[in-house]
Amino acid sequence: MRASRFLIATLKETPADAEVISHQLMLRAGMIRKLAAGLYTWLPLGLRVLRKVEAIVREEMNGAGAQEVLMPVVQPAELWQESERWEQFGPELLRVEDRHQRPFCLGPTHEEVITDLVRQQIKSYRQLPVNLYQIQTKFRDETRPRFGIMRAREFLMKDAYSFHLEQASLQDTYDIMHGAYTRIFTRIGLDFRPVLAATGAIGGSSSHEFHVLADSGEDAIAFSDNSDYAANVELAEAVAPTVERAAPTRELIEVVTPDQHTIEEVSDFLAVPPTDMVKTLIVLGEATAEEEQPLLALVLRGDHELNAVKAENLAGVASPLTLAAPQRIETALGCQVGSIGPVGLPIPVIVDRSAAVLADFVCGANKDGYHLTGVNWDRDAQLDRVADLRNVVPGDPSPDGNGSLDIKRGIEVGHIFQLGDKYSRTMNATVLDENGREQTMVMGCYGIGVSRIVAAAIEQNHDDSGIIWPAAIAPFDIALVPINMHKSAAVAAKCEALYRDLQAAGYTVLFMDEAKARLGGMLADVELMGIPHRVVVGERGLQAGLVEYKGRRDADSRDLTEKDLLDLLKREE
Amino acid sequence: MRASRFLIATLKETPADAEVISHQLMLRAGMIRKLAAGLYTWLPLGLRVLRKVEAIVREEMNGAGAQEVLMPVVQPAELWQESERWEQFGPELLRVEDRHQRPFCLGPTHEEVITDLVRQQIKSYRQLPVNLYQIQTKFRDETRPRFGIMRAREFLMKDAYSFHLEQASLQDTYDIMHGAYTRIFTRIGLDFRPVLAATGAIGGSSSHEFHVLADSGEDAIAFSDNSDYAANVELAEAVAPTVERAAPTRELIEVVTPDQHTIEEVSDFLAVPPTDMVKTLIVLGEATAEEEQPLLALVLRGDHELNAVKAENLAGVASPLTLAAPQRIETALGCQVGSIGPVGLPIPVIVDRSAAVLADFVCGANKDGYHLTGVNWDRDAQLDRVADLRNVVPGDPSPDGNGSLDIKRGIEVGHIFQLGDKYSRTMNATVLDENGREQTMVMGCYGIGVSRIVAAAIEQNHDDSGIIWPAAIAPFDIALVPINMHKSAAVAAKCEALYRDLQAAGYTVLFMDEAKARLGGMLADVELMGIPHRVVVGERGLQAGLVEYKGRRDADSRDLTEKDLLDLLKREE
Repeated sequence: MRASRFLIATLKETPADAEVISHQLMLRAGMIRKLAAGLYTWLPLGLRVLRKVEAIVREEMNGAGAQEVLMPVVQPAELWQESERWEQFGPELLRVEDRHQRPFCLGPTHEEVITDLVRQQIKSYRQLPVNLYQIQTKFRDETRPRFGIMRAREFLMKDAYSFHLEQASLQDTYDIMHGAYTRIFTRIGLDFRPVLAATGAIGGSSSHEFHVLADSGEDAIAFSDNSDYAANVELAEAVAPTVERAAPTRELIEVVTPDQHTIEEVSDFLAVPPTDMVKTLIVLGEATAEEEQPLLALVLRGDHELNAVKAENLAGVASPLTLAAPQRIETALGCQVGSIGPVGLPIPVIVDRSAAVLADFVCGANKDGYHLTGVNWDRDAQLDRVADLRNVVPGDPSPDGNGSLDIKRGIEVGHIFQLGDKYSRTMNATVLDENGREQTMVMGCYGIGVSRIVAAAIEQNHDDSGIIWPAAIAPFDIALVPINMHKSAAVAAKCEALYRDLQAAGYTVLFMDEAKARLGGMLADVELMGIPHRVVVGERGLQAGLVEYKGRRDADSRDLTEKDLLDLLKREE
Repeated sequence: MRASRFLIATLKETPADAEVISHQLMLRAGMIRKLAAGLYTWLPLGLRVLRKVEAIVREEMNGAGAQEVLMPVVQPAELWQESERWEQFGPELLRVEDRHQRPFCLGPTHEEVITDLVRQQIKSYRQLPVNLYQIQTKFRDETRPRFGIMRAREFLMKDAYSFHLEQASLQDTYDIMHGAYTRIFTRIGLDFRPVLAATGAIGGSSSHEFHVLADSGEDAIAFSDNSDYAANVELAEAVAPTVERAAPTRELIEVVTPDQHTIEEVSDFLAVPPTDMVKTLIVLGEATAEEEQPLLALVLRGDHELNAVKAENLAGVASPLTLAAPQRIETALGCQVGSIGPVGLPIPVIVDRSAAVLADFVCGANKDGYHLTGVNWDRDAQLDRVADLRNVVPGDPSPDGNGSLDIKRGIEVGHIFQLGDKYSRTMNATVLDENGREQTMVMGCYGIGVSRIVAAAIEQNHDDSGIIWPAAIAPFDIALVPINMHKSAAVAAKCEALYRDLQAAGYTVLFMDEAKARLGGMLADVELMGIPHRVVVGERGLQAGLVEYKGRRDADSRDLTEKDLLDLLKREE
């Protein structure tokens, strides 16, 4: 591609409203432009990258036996009413009326449409399993679209849906998709982790998210330093400590702690580390015969954080997890929330595994202005119920028994999910089994954020000069930059020859052929655009038979003969 | 592709609500399924064809120097208000409000979005010309969607927009697009015509439609049998007859024609052919100083049809063309509309060129129940104003002077258009010219109905058994059909070998590998799906070293060796 025929729309300044680096660099490199909040136009440079991602996704989906279809963006409300999501889905579902006042929505996802299609087309178990996918524009009316295309309202998604007679077949396809996703993100060249994910309200079935590791990620992921265990922090088990609880060595003493409420304040005041303290949170329990919203105490070690998902999944704890109101705590327990402790507490207590092995610890005295030191379980406080209540922290043992956990930030770019019969049951999608009996199909769904991958790749691959594309999704393989082409016939001729030869060798080349462009500006542009290989052709080098080469990650350039250049490019493939 | 892993969704019955053959066959072959009125899901078979069309369009657009972008489906109202189309566009523009009650629309076309993009990115004449295109989902809320994907509400379109400093450059790009469209439709294998089209309200500038010729087409196209002249009938000039008007030979006579009103009735009654008669239509003129809606008479030969576009473009004729109300005609002229004639008519008369060369003709007597015979211009009626008022008919001379016209039906699949400054002016899209002066850009736009092409190809290529795909867009090149594969190891082995070898030779193959499928059903399916080449493998043939081949357009099959089969396929490429 000649730059003179290509819309290069680089910006020198970082746009003020771009918060994350991928958004800044996509604007600066001229990949996208904002049309309205959460709506972006892909410029030629950006679209080349998007299409490369799309092609890899398509190849691997086809290779894994999935069949491509294309469903409408606009969907009739009836199907969403049938699945009961028309009311359940929040305002992210953009509802529209057509000219005849019939209700429709812009598809944020296509479970209803595909289930409707399959229940009409698939009648027999012999037609199963089937895995159908599309790569299509989706719309979610985010309340606060941000981070550019990372959380846009209109975006490109690959969504696949598989249908099965039974769970074992679903598990097979799920595993095949897990493998396909692993190949997709590997081919694109991303540092990613498949992580166990919470299954949310659907419950029970298996789910994995695929995360690209990047500091700007919205999710925290725990993963083993010695195995492939990885899980969303929401879900990662904090395994029970292997150490036994030490025997008491100190007496229980009530100490005065005026105006000391938080763990940090009490830790400083008493010169006791938070690891030797516990904190007690009062939450609402599930309704019992006696009381509609009984109070419950959750006890954690001072340095640990409550994991709401784990807590609300425990029997007796109300879901969603709800902290008790301060006023109610004071009325029921006679002190402020910051003074609560497990000693003599008149409500049920659930103790985190790590808090349960403490000895001689510090806690609130259930009396404002006082704490207890030298507290010991059994001796001073009942230890009726122990559970995993906390978020894992770096250094925790891996739940699979291999290595210890590290925690990094991740950007979710894929999600595979065993839906079971959630949609097929409400929408009555059945087939006849071997015995001629009607069976409700079971379903899996498998999403990839195609446009989001582009941003995630940048979050993971950039430096002060701009984007550094993984080779597989670079908009061009090579930038060819002449020095003073309009003054040197030799430079112009060599560039034209190289442009032709490099393309003949199978590379995509951006030839910076605009006669009057300044060299410095061109070099900055090709770095910003992240093109993997840069070849500069100048009069001086040509006299020695050399061109100047620099890989995008190289600190310095080097002079090469044309043959050495081709050899080097070949080695790098 | 193995049929056992491919969703074949053929139907035996023709769906009741499908009016045109392409809609019927796309449903029956399992290419599409209806989701709601005007909304269709593309099944795997259909999508393979759609993607082939898309790829050809993309290749030729790129080859013609256009750059691909991707604009959002959802567009903010502000831009449409700026171009003044928010109010002008009818209910086909689906207007929506987001969660913050901000108005948007689903894009039926993208002039506003691209003009907004270009006015921000392009600042200098040096960046021009630029031609940007996308292949994107469009939405038009048709009041009565019909003919399947031919007139769907959601459809896939290629829309390109070019920007220029001046008209000469626009004309260059327009010509390049004309060439690219010609290559696209030629490569797809369609019988098509580029036809001169009306420019409508925008006026003045040039416009061509590309029509696929098919009896079911909604448009009538006139084209020369001896040149490449072609025009929408709306626009084709009926050139002035070269014969001179004959001298009068008969007297003017008033004849009684009781209850005879139409041309046909009077022709039968008087035994005079319609070609020797004139009909007189009364329409509204443009307001004058004296009268707001003066009456005007338009006179045509009895067998000719009024062309409303030509008439309303004449000075003095109201636009849009409006027939006068019968009551007003009777009051003003003293007789019913069927009795009007040019003799002694007290209003201005415009006479069609062909009516103007008649002699001794028949017309209404301006008196109910009477006609005049032996009428002659000048002697009996004034001939003040002669114009082209009629639709051309087969046999008319071609306006370019080469050959005579034929008329066929066409399906519009492409449209190229010189927009001039319609959008750039209202949206203030300017660049600096060589002298540093601000100039409003001029624009062209170039559309292709990507999904409609699929239907148009079927309208033009089908028989009683189903679709007959042009090779370039066939979903598969070859259908490989075994006879009793589950009973014959030899058949199974030969099919597997052929499946491998044909794919290795570069062909896409649909291998009908479902063990229990009936041969008759499989053969009917592959004909219905329109696959160009069919290879049947059976035990008996194999014993003689032969397979059975049938081209989709062949009446009969023939037995070939594998080598002859490959040679034949190669010749057909």
